[in-house]
Amino acid sequence: MPRWESDAQGRLERAALELFETQGFERTSVAQIARTAGLTERSFYRYFPDKREVLFAGNELEDHLVAQVEAADPSLTPFEALLTALGTAEEIFRPRELLLRRVKVIAANPALAERDLNKLADIADALARALERRGVEPGEARFVIDVAIAISRRATSRWLADPDATLAELVAQAAAELREAVAPPAPTVR
Amino acid sequence: MPRWESDAQGRLERAALELFETQGFERTSVAQIARTAGLTERSFYRYFPDKREVLFAGNELEDHLVAQVEAADPSLTPFEALLTALGTAEEIFRPRELLLRRVKVIAANPALAERDLNKLADIADALARALERRGVEPGEARFVIDVAIAISRRATSRWLADPDATLAELVAQAAAELREAVAPPAPTVR
Repeated sequence: MPRWESDAQGRLERAALELFETQGFERTSVAQIARTAGLTERSFYRYFPDKREVLFAGNELEDHLVAQVEAADPSLTPFEALLTALGTAEEIFRPRELLLRRVKVIAANPALAERDLNKLADIADALARALERRGVEPGEARFVIDVAIAISRRATSRWLADPDATLAELVAQAAAELREAVAPPAPTVR
Repeated sequence: MPRWESDAQGRLERAALELFETQGFERTSVAQIARTAGLTERSFYRYFPDKREVLFAGNELEDHLVAQVEAADPSLTPFEALLTALGTAEEIFRPRELLLRRVKVIAANPALAERDLNKLADIADALARALERRGVEPGEARFVIDVAIAISRRATSRWLADPDATLAELVAQAAAELREAVAPPAPTVR
């Protein structure tokens, strides 16, 4: 497959991102995305079922996190295994500039935000199965994943704003903040 | 407004739940829901824009949680204020039998599960604004809410399974489990 052919999907993704940014998701048509990418509408539908899916193709993040959890030291607690996995996701999130644009476009368009929540739920389901294969009880697995996702959101939004910190550092920072936030209140002196 | 008229919405909701349970969301039409409720399709559309919305009308939970957070003792931490609010949601969740049926129907139908995630995101947004009005920084507010929602999911799923515990007790139990799960690992003796 020649290079231009194999990159058609990437060109469609970049074209869609740009059009969603400049004119919004609702006002962008599949025909426009295809034209901007130098392709036909027919080509578009070889890669994506509709325009909402353009930004959600691929399962790199899910595959990466599941593989990391599966490879984690068996002595780690479920929470530690998840945090370690999340800290290594930086390679998937790069280039940061592109992720930042994507995050903004998704936040600005309800149909994309809805799809994004679903994708996150799918990742959570896959991680739950990975933890269950490590012997974690399903209810506990779901709980620890929900908490880890909260940490990941906190760390990732900082990573997008701060070019100097690593994602692993920010995951550790958010975990430390969580420990502090949930600590039992200190006894009040009366 | 006569009684039968004011309860039309409730009848439509119960009819939809029953039809989604017995034949699935996809195979249920608005016409069927209306007929089962003893109403016309036209009446249906006075209350709901489409069949997906039938199970998501009303903002009782959001309104309740926001009011609780606003009324919380100013000396409580954001996390404590949220947990206290969540513990009082039992009155909204009753009757439990109905919530259990609703949860099962939503889990079994992707279109409903997607809508449910969105509704939860709206509640999180409303709670974030409530915490910000208490002076909490937006990033921290979002983080603490994500964690509190994880606790709420854990507590609610146990409450649905166990008729004897109160939701407030189960929220406290999940918070205790969270503290344990995120505690730094004990030093290993070598």
